[in-house]
Amino acid sequence: MNANTQLIATAVQAWRLTIDRISKTLASFTDDELQLEVAPGKNRVYCLVGHLAATHDRLFPLLRLGERLHPELDSQFLENPDRKFLGHDVTPAELRTIWSEVNQKLVEAFASLEPHEWLQRHGSVSEEDFAKEPLRNRLAVLISRLSHAAYHEGQMRLVGGSLPSRS
Amino acid sequence: MNANTQLIATAVQAWRLTIDRISKTLASFTDDELQLEVAPGKNRVYCLVGHLAATHDRLFPLLRLGERLHPELDSQFLENPDRKFLGHDVTPAELRTIWSEVNQKLVEAFASLEPHEWLQRHGSVSEEDFAKEPLRNRLAVLISRLSHAAYHEGQMRLVGGSLPSRS
Repeated sequence: MNANTQLIATAVQAWRLTIDRISKTLASFTDDELQLEVAPGKNRVYCLVGHLAATHDRLFPLLRLGERLHPELDSQFLENPDRKFLGHDVTPAELRTIWSEVNQKLVEAFASLEPHEWLQRHGSVSEEDFAKEPLRNRLAVLISRLSHAAYHEGQMRLVGGSLPSRS
Repeated sequence: MNANTQLIATAVQAWRLTIDRISKTLASFTDDELQLEVAPGKNRVYCLVGHLAATHDRLFPLLRLGERLHPELDSQFLENPDRKFLGHDVTPAELRTIWSEVNQKLVEAFASLEPHEWLQRHGSVSEEDFAKEPLRNRLAVLISRLSHAAYHEGQMRLVGGSLPSRS
């Protein structure tokens, strides 16, 4: 394995570990527990999982890896605050399935990229801007979204006591 | 800039962004607000900042970048639960200074590493184990600690309302 390959393998492995940890957290909650707020007056766990699923679904176009699987998530989980969405709520069972599907397909899509392709621009930066700011690349998006997922994981883990807290 | 250099620059930039965001969060809290719990019965913000400062201070030996600056933090922030430490508490003012100092010195130390050195083993894996698991390298530690910092940042940001929540 050359250095580039190994650097990307390390970053993708870190992504997998984060997703696996959140998947375990999600599996540890009953459907009822998903309705708990992470702190008084704050988002429900259910809402945070939906928010992450929608954000990760958006990675397909953002990383230029193809079409989204679930654009219908945005209205409930990205464009409206928790409990203000007036449409049909995704059920907890549906959300669990979507979470697995989106993240599974994402890591498959990651595997299709060669190491140097991670240094190419992400889908929200123009070629002109990218020429000036070459760090606005796919890898930057991957690490940023990993950090974002961990941010909300820390909030989810305030609820329930069946898993040891991350130290 | 060659590909390796650019991959590492991207990861280190992501680290900086995470630390800068947490530093802004810390600056947004008064000393009194640092004493607030992130959720009922959970850690105080003060404790989480100390926990992160101690964890980042440990990165010096873990990344084989030199001696720690503040080993005295461990007893209060890593080895005892919040409010169970019987020694002298670090004051909020001291904690703010330590946070800045540790993170400033860390990014300076990161700059001393060549890209290929990020693929070398971290300080807690033996050469023998590393030969079998080459992804247990310095870069893996960097991304893991970035994720860990974001995890606790998400908890801190449940307190107070002066900064917009991360979407």
